[in-house]
Amino acid sequence: MSKPSFETVLTPALLPLYDLKGKIVVVIDILRATSSICVGFNTGVRLFRPVAYPDQAKTLESSGYIAAAERDGRKLDGFSLGNSPFDYLDPELKDRKIAITTTNGTRCLRLSYEAEEILIGSFLNLEALSRYCIESKKNVIAFCAGWKDKFNLEDTLFAGAFANNLKELYTLECDSTLAAQDLYNFASKDLADYITKASHAQRFERLGIEKDIKFCMQNSIYDIVPKMIGDDLIL
Amino acid sequence: MSKPSFETVLTPALLPLYDLKGKIVVVIDILRATSSICVGFNTGVRLFRPVAYPDQAKTLESSGYIAAAERDGRKLDGFSLGNSPFDYLDPELKDRKIAITTTNGTRCLRLSYEAEEILIGSFLNLEALSRYCIESKKNVIAFCAGWKDKFNLEDTLFAGAFANNLKELYTLECDSTLAAQDLYNFASKDLADYITKASHAQRFERLGIEKDIKFCMQNSIYDIVPKMIGDDLIL
Repeated sequence: MSKPSFETVLTPALLPLYDLKGKIVVVIDILRATSSICVGFNTGVRLFRPVAYPDQAKTLESSGYIAAAERDGRKLDGFSLGNSPFDYLDPELKDRKIAITTTNGTRCLRLSYEAEEILIGSFLNLEALSRYCIESKKNVIAFCAGWKDKFNLEDTLFAGAFANNLKELYTLECDSTLAAQDLYNFASKDLADYITKASHAQRFERLGIEKDIKFCMQNSIYDIVPKMIGDDLIL
Repeated sequence: MSKPSFETVLTPALLPLYDLKGKIVVVIDILRATSSICVGFNTGVRLFRPVAYPDQAKTLESSGYIAAAERDGRKLDGFSLGNSPFDYLDPELKDRKIAITTTNGTRCLRLSYEAEEILIGSFLNLEALSRYCIESKKNVIAFCAGWKDKFNLEDTLFAGAFANNLKELYTLECDSTLAAQDLYNFASKDLADYITKASHAQRFERLGIEKDIKFCMQNSIYDIVPKMIGDDLIL
């Protein structure tokens, strides 16, 4: 039997070039949406509902949801949560439902609707995610959320680490994956340090979130694989 | 005075995210259009007219042009030239005009029409190109032609080498440029070897053009900077 395929989509603007049907799409927004969603589930959040607009998240408060909204790296005024991983460590979140909208990550979950399965990828759950994909034997697309449709380094580095984990059992199809792997191999000695050099991180540094970067670079501290079922992310 | 900016566009699908006005756009299609165009000019070709379709190139034969057409890595039947660099070493091409259409490269020249200047980039003219840009003091966009709107390694590697040459005098703005530089630094010990591992190169190997790859990886053997003026590429 031929090996399943592994492809990397470097930004949402490139997603239309790929056929998602029958595949697992792993959405990757390392700084910070998909990392923070993993933190939330580990804290005991029951589900996340990704929505496009802040007012949609607000509206869901009356149905018992906590509203989370981030734009351009900042928590929006009037919302309980932003997308810093530290927001999602609060034990009060156990068993709660969270409606969340972010600049890049939640949009990508919606764009992936044609996939057979949509999963959440971050360094925090890398091993569990890799194991899940390998056991599924399905074709995989690593979908980097990027920054406003542009390429970013941290999501690509994760795609490279993820490809490394799958490479023995998968056919790595595209130049994007090869580039992601080599960048990861180049940067893996000190990922957090490497990310601080990225322009994306520099933008965040001005917002004072160096701590978030360090947190999000922790490797495989959670044994979970969040996935989309209907409109919700669940475990 | 602030430094001019250097940005990298990884594929044509990402070009709409960038503002080209007032900037130099360097079109990069290492395997093989922009490399072969440099070879042609070095041989003495008077001008290249990039066109969208093979029949447009054919039509120009009656106006004294030589017609060149490549699709999917192959010279089209009935055309004098394809896009192998070796096609453009023929001394008979001296003072001739060539109408050319290729899978990726010629399209990118047309997509760049909003730029102040459109230049041709390849390893073969890297130093001359870098010097030209530095002397211009203009903002620069390295525009990778990719493969059918997808990312490819060899164009990105060139963008990295080009960025390395400009980095002291330019502000490197985006994660794409940082990634391109690190990939180049990672691969530069043996570029041709690295490229053979790329899926794009593997596709070409099946077409038997390993020789072309090696030729196109030669660094700065031509002291020329082809540029678009109106509908034509000239020196």
